[in-house]
Amino acid sequence: MTSSPAKRLVVVGSGPGGYEAALTGAAAGLLVTLVERGKLGGVCLNWGCVPTKHLLATTLAVDALEAQARQKLASGTVVPDLAAIQAKKKKLLAATQSAMAKTLEKAGVRLVTGNLTGVSGDGAGRVAHVSVGTGAEALPFDALILALGSRAASFPGVKPDGQAVLGVSPVLDLTEAPESLIIVGAGAIGLEFSEVFHRLGTKVTMVDAAPRLAPLEDPDVSKVVAQVMRRRGIDARAGVSVTSLVTEDGKARMTLAGGEVFVADKALVAIGRFAPTAVPGLAELGAAFASPSPNKAWISTDDTLQAAPGIYAVGDCNGRLLLAHAASSQGAYAARHAAGLVTSPYAPGPIPGCYYGVPEIMRVGDIAAPGEAMSEAAFVANPIAQAHADTAGFARVTWKDGKVAGITAVGHGASAMGTLATVIVAQAWTREQAEALVFPHPGLDETLRAALLADVKTREA
Amino acid sequence: MTSSPAKRLVVVGSGPGGYEAALTGAAAGLLVTLVERGKLGGVCLNWGCVPTKHLLATTLAVDALEAQARQKLASGTVVPDLAAIQAKKKKLLAATQSAMAKTLEKAGVRLVTGNLTGVSGDGAGRVAHVSVGTGAEALPFDALILALGSRAASFPGVKPDGQAVLGVSPVLDLTEAPESLIIVGAGAIGLEFSEVFHRLGTKVTMVDAAPRLAPLEDPDVSKVVAQVMRRRGIDARAGVSVTSLVTEDGKARMTLAGGEVFVADKALVAIGRFAPTAVPGLAELGAAFASPSPNKAWISTDDTLQAAPGIYAVGDCNGRLLLAHAASSQGAYAARHAAGLVTSPYAPGPIPGCYYGVPEIMRVGDIAAPGEAMSEAAFVANPIAQAHADTAGFARVTWKDGKVAGITAVGHGASAMGTLATVIVAQAWTREQAEALVFPHPGLDETLRAALLADVKTREA
Repeated sequence: MTSSPAKRLVVVGSGPGGYEAALTGAAAGLLVTLVERGKLGGVCLNWGCVPTKHLLATTLAVDALEAQARQKLASGTVVPDLAAIQAKKKKLLAATQSAMAKTLEKAGVRLVTGNLTGVSGDGAGRVAHVSVGTGAEALPFDALILALGSRAASFPGVKPDGQAVLGVSPVLDLTEAPESLIIVGAGAIGLEFSEVFHRLGTKVTMVDAAPRLAPLEDPDVSKVVAQVMRRRGIDARAGVSVTSLVTEDGKARMTLAGGEVFVADKALVAIGRFAPTAVPGLAELGAAFASPSPNKAWISTDDTLQAAPGIYAVGDCNGRLLLAHAASSQGAYAARHAAGLVTSPYAPGPIPGCYYGVPEIMRVGDIAAPGEAMSEAAFVANPIAQAHADTAGFARVTWKDGKVAGITAVGHGASAMGTLATVIVAQAWTREQAEALVFPHPGLDETLRAALLADVKTREA
Repeated sequence: MTSSPAKRLVVVGSGPGGYEAALTGAAAGLLVTLVERGKLGGVCLNWGCVPTKHLLATTLAVDALEAQARQKLASGTVVPDLAAIQAKKKKLLAATQSAMAKTLEKAGVRLVTGNLTGVSGDGAGRVAHVSVGTGAEALPFDALILALGSRAASFPGVKPDGQAVLGVSPVLDLTEAPESLIIVGAGAIGLEFSEVFHRLGTKVTMVDAAPRLAPLEDPDVSKVVAQVMRRRGIDARAGVSVTSLVTEDGKARMTLAGGEVFVADKALVAIGRFAPTAVPGLAELGAAFASPSPNKAWISTDDTLQAAPGIYAVGDCNGRLLLAHAASSQGAYAARHAAGLVTSPYAPGPIPGCYYGVPEIMRVGDIAAPGEAMSEAAFVANPIAQAHADTAGFARVTWKDGKVAGITAVGHGASAMGTLATVIVAQAWTREQAEALVFPHPGLDETLRAALLADVKTREA
């Protein structure tokens, strides 16, 4: 028997974490209220994962033609209509939101369109305060799941100004591609945008203060990214500090630490994510924060994702892993924990991360450190990569005690290996397990197979 | 201790089965001779898996543009240069063959370019007879692995004539796309060719005597194939018998059983595969055949892939499963068995099959029969499929005793799920196992996840 489960669950935020928490809570028999201040779906659906993939997929023909034209195997022109692509995106997002609303309704989740203004409570009970239009509503709860997301980061001097210097959301809604675009930040977001606008004919200049592009990935991944971008004529510079980025005469003007100046029609600031705005009263209910400044602090959680007893923080807002599928996984767990269906600590296994630009990148588990064991294979021998005229990159396996501890891939279609790689890492495969599996031929996964079966070496310093 | 292992291994055929057998045998310490009468790589590399994928990948931009143009999200033209594509293919194949030759040499495999003319032997020893140029060579063996492949099938009245009615190989080498093409056969080969030539601007008419397109797959897969081809303007007819297909006035003229006549610039006969030519002397050494006519008979094998003691048949020629990766798997096993490294029966687990046209198809394990349990999810809700404007199709799971027994998918990118699906079927996952895995978002694999987690229903008759 578990302790008496929560009856009233309030979930705040309808991104992947909150949406999954609400549905899971309702399926577990809780009375669920879902609070969302904006559109259903959070950053992922509205200004993140989904719309970026929409822009990449709708412009795929440009890249496919470019790759073959480079080899003189095809000619022609592909002209994406960005305004039409955006109109289509709006329709698709609205249809998804409508389907989400129906699913929530069918599950018996009460949806409140409002803004969380604070929490309060004592021994007699706890309440989430929500402003709804010009009014307010108090939502008593037994359990609260905060799925507040995160905010786009900026730094002094490098801050969207709503004119030529923009954040992710307005750039995602552009209906006309700028002639030139500065992108500050060479992480997943910056890299995907650089690809989208390259395909739309924009002259892209990307800079990052980190010593290499895709700075969170294996250093050799960064080398492939740099090589592919150079080959495709995208100006991408790592180890470059921006001292100012401002709008001047209607254009974005970027000054680098060395004094060099770039001017472009628009600039995109994509330098990471901050914690969401602090929730008044949360600290008083026992929640701690991961940074001394509660205004910009991730909500600390214990090994059951609780920030305080019965108060969970899932997804971006707990600062663990800023990925949509991590949020969904946490949201489902928190709701089940709140319902008393699970009591063991949150242990989701390895969580994959993918970059969907060119080249694609996929990683799950550990990157081999110097002195650790790894094996690898290059895409250059893969007939599918050859046929796509896109052979840069590799798959690489990190080994610990003769078992797979991590997989990284960079190259054509690498993101599509994400789920398979997650299974292999989660199950800590041996070489023999990989050998026993019949991989379909021909396929990009065969390069992962070759990496799993290649001689294991010690990574050099 | 195993019984005294073979010392001299002769492998005949350098397709996926023979190549893998030769390398595995050499790695196991056998003295290996590999006999190949033509180019290294067999049908897979030269006239099958690889060149068809080359044609599909090099023309991808046509399909990607067509999909977006249909939605008015892009305009333009893509003109593949088939002559250049073929020249590039030749280079890539030659490079692969050169790499294969080097790998064989490095492994210590002796390569003999010649044609197997027969086998003979008695208690004193057995010999493979090979014609080499105008001479001949006798290769004594302790173990023989036959990896003879298969031949394109034809039927009376529907037979390539070397003029306008062609088999797969000459069509694969066309440097100019015909204005119109008849394809007889709507299996994997016919479907992939229909897509390639559709992209090249050819008017394609495809017919099959079977009652549905992709007749070996789930009947609902066939419906999706028909729907997608109709939408794209490809004339594909199932349940249609061809009474004759001949060259007349330089064109292909097809007469159907109902009397209807089609004329096209070229015709492709892709109605399956026959067993290879019988090997003289093989029956005398104890090998049996799976059909009463030894001229067109698959070589029967026992559960260790032996056709007679020490004589193995792997890949197409044993008629088990005509797939390249099945051949590789069998070749590796046979070589290890011959070397005494394995004695248990050949049990490779589930083997995936993929179709790489539009729509893609993937299947591994069982198709649910009427009365059996299945669950499914449609691609229409998948944001990646939506963005590619290619939402037809579904993923479907066959369940036996609460465990996954088969997975089928048809739709955008379905072939890329092949390895993942193979793992899931091989491990006979439960619903809980699927639930515990964090899938990357957004991805096409999420439709497979949705299918794994959907309500299980009984398939109707």
